[in-house]
Amino acid sequence: MSEPFDAVQVIVAKRDGKVLPDAQIDWVVDAYTRGVVADEQMSSLAMAILQRGMTRAEIARWTQAMIATGERLDFSGLGKPTADKHSTGGVGDKITLPLAPLVAACGVAVPQLSGRGLGHTGGTLDKLESIKGWRADLSNEEMYQQLQDVGAVICAAGSGLAPADKKLYALRDVTGTVESIPMIAASIMSKKIAEGTGALVLDVKVGTGAFMKDIDSARELARTMVDLGTDAGVTTAALLTDMSTPLGLAIGNANEVAESVEVLAGGGPADVVELTLTLAREMLAGAGVTDVDPADALRDGRAMDSWRRMISAQGGDPDAPLPIAKHVEEVRADRDGYLTRLDALGLGIAAWRLGAGRERKEDPVQFGAGINLRKQLGEEVRKGDVIMTLHTDTPERMPRGLAALDEALDGAGAIEIGDAPAERSLILDKVGTRS
Amino acid sequence: MSEPFDAVQVIVAKRDGKVLPDAQIDWVVDAYTRGVVADEQMSSLAMAILQRGMTRAEIARWTQAMIATGERLDFSGLGKPTADKHSTGGVGDKITLPLAPLVAACGVAVPQLSGRGLGHTGGTLDKLESIKGWRADLSNEEMYQQLQDVGAVICAAGSGLAPADKKLYALRDVTGTVESIPMIAASIMSKKIAEGTGALVLDVKVGTGAFMKDIDSARELARTMVDLGTDAGVTTAALLTDMSTPLGLAIGNANEVAESVEVLAGGGPADVVELTLTLAREMLAGAGVTDVDPADALRDGRAMDSWRRMISAQGGDPDAPLPIAKHVEEVRADRDGYLTRLDALGLGIAAWRLGAGRERKEDPVQFGAGINLRKQLGEEVRKGDVIMTLHTDTPERMPRGLAALDEALDGAGAIEIGDAPAERSLILDKVGTRS
Repeated sequence: MSEPFDAVQVIVAKRDGKVLPDAQIDWVVDAYTRGVVADEQMSSLAMAILQRGMTRAEIARWTQAMIATGERLDFSGLGKPTADKHSTGGVGDKITLPLAPLVAACGVAVPQLSGRGLGHTGGTLDKLESIKGWRADLSNEEMYQQLQDVGAVICAAGSGLAPADKKLYALRDVTGTVESIPMIAASIMSKKIAEGTGALVLDVKVGTGAFMKDIDSARELARTMVDLGTDAGVTTAALLTDMSTPLGLAIGNANEVAESVEVLAGGGPADVVELTLTLAREMLAGAGVTDVDPADALRDGRAMDSWRRMISAQGGDPDAPLPIAKHVEEVRADRDGYLTRLDALGLGIAAWRLGAGRERKEDPVQFGAGINLRKQLGEEVRKGDVIMTLHTDTPERMPRGLAALDEALDGAGAIEIGDAPAERSLILDKVGTRS
Repeated sequence: MSEPFDAVQVIVAKRDGKVLPDAQIDWVVDAYTRGVVADEQMSSLAMAILQRGMTRAEIARWTQAMIATGERLDFSGLGKPTADKHSTGGVGDKITLPLAPLVAACGVAVPQLSGRGLGHTGGTLDKLESIKGWRADLSNEEMYQQLQDVGAVICAAGSGLAPADKKLYALRDVTGTVESIPMIAASIMSKKIAEGTGALVLDVKVGTGAFMKDIDSARELARTMVDLGTDAGVTTAALLTDMSTPLGLAIGNANEVAESVEVLAGGGPADVVELTLTLAREMLAGAGVTDVDPADALRDGRAMDSWRRMISAQGGDPDAPLPIAKHVEEVRADRDGYLTRLDALGLGIAAWRLGAGRERKEDPVQFGAGINLRKQLGEEVRKGDVIMTLHTDTPERMPRGLAALDEALDGAGAIEIGDAPAERSLILDKVGTRS
């Protein structure tokens, strides 16, 4: 079959700053998925897009073209509204775990397709896999049935959704073309739109531990994704939230499950509770449910029931003891003062090295490895106080003591004790549909 | 062996507008040639270079890195100075054919490595291959011996010179990254510097039939190449010359050889003679020979003797009749007036379609195909005068008549007859070493 366009023609147009016609976008995404456009052509185009940008209409078309390479899920037959949340990834970000059953307990179904972690940010599926028996891989039919019965599902995205994105993401990763806001937005939103959710709330992280280091880039990404969702008929909103310091006290896998269960039991660290409730309210509002307060569902045990049914439905035992690491080391304060710095990136890398994360896609994670904070940013400490404990099965990777941890973090100074308390603002901004 | 750098690191640095350190340039060019840096990584880097540019020092290092992937020729033992010419390619540009033997006749050796044509600009080797018995492929030893004995050689560049350039050029061709002045300059100059010439004159063509359509880009390319040659110790100068209309009267292969022989015999079209003599004087001056007038060598037969010996040394018979095409068609003027437009690109494409050029690298050319002009730009014509003849072995490709030719040229209006004579300036500018 002869092709309607030539890859060089499309590359040259974007290279020279032109707006790509719809038909060329449709073709190049499809032809790349079919292998007609070669990797070296798509990487050149990706670099041209990174340098020249895309218009709102181009990004929307690119996203639709990626969706069109695969299947679309449809939950319109469920008889209840659907809402999903996507986080751009952070350190200690276990919010999906309490959030999905909480929103389901409020009458909105949550079809949450998640991923595994790579690098210093953890993966939701890795965390849940520390629960004995729990399985991430569900068929579309199982997913649908669970949404009907339980109302919440957290599972692995099948390979059927936007296969173009999977291929393109792997290419961008090795060609220096990841950092393009249009392509990041299209990558995230193609999967979320194909997933068929009615409402979507985006948690765009900002700070050292996040992909977006500054609020302007984060706002641009949020704006781009909200526009994409809106243009595709999904009620979409985005929160910009702080990722300069970890969320909660637990960084790892099993310990983040334990912290999530505390939140579902009505306790847990204040920041995790605040973000969970804020995101739940946004999801419910997006789904048109405004007469339910999710705080009640945490208080009266409905959210916990929903969690237990969600875990059980996927083969997990909600009562099984969680894995713990073989070795523990305490990190103590070397002076009196206030925790003025508890850096998300530094602690994320430390937890990763302790074994909570993986270096290559095929590596296993240590479910018990990670960091348990005893103090959060801004808290007062006295010399000798335990600031955190480090957990690992592989102690040869474990730095001894605070100074050694700092050293292990390449002198990044991840922890600082100063003379005055530090303030933290958790919810930085909200980006909604343009009026 | 572990690699000192990572391709993504180099790509990201250039993508973000940084100057690449020497060690990274050396590594990425070498690692690409070894296959450690993948095609999709090099094409992404090439697009980043196209968008972000390179400094004079980066271009020089890139060029040296490409040279270092292959062999270098050395003519210092010849006992005579060497000079070479490179043209960026045009329509009817047969200047190398009379120029090399002319300069050799004046005492300067000319080691001219040439290429074959692709697209609408002809290739020097294709033209010479229309001479019975002549062969383009010489060993380095044969080339050296011929320079010693005859003083001029025009042959195919072996695969040993700058193999990185060969691989990179093929990649750029399919990834929309050809039009980067730093990379064009590095590509040309890596081969010319590796070739070991002492002096080099660049003929940078400007106009519709040239790669550079405007004088500013042509000047930038010329300046970049002159700097590169100078930095590498080669005495380098560049002329910017007009390519809005063909050079001379012959466009094709055998007919261009015939026109070159006319020039060597002391005749030929004035523009071909002027450019040949101007370039010869530049080459001689670059080689330090200032007391010889090449016009004398054309007049007294020394240049023709040199040509005959050059052709014979490579197995060619300088007295053999040249191939002629099977079919001829005349194109006549449809009104009285002056030739106000005789477009190089249009006529180049027409000659190419008649069979003088090739579409794919592996195609043969028709030696007798092409166009013989009877009139040049600016000349007076009367209705019914023959403006040109079209020659082909494949008449199904041959447009019938002037109107049909215009039509065949996609309505480009390659030929126009107007009311007032048009002027042409052949030599537009000269770019020498910075003082």
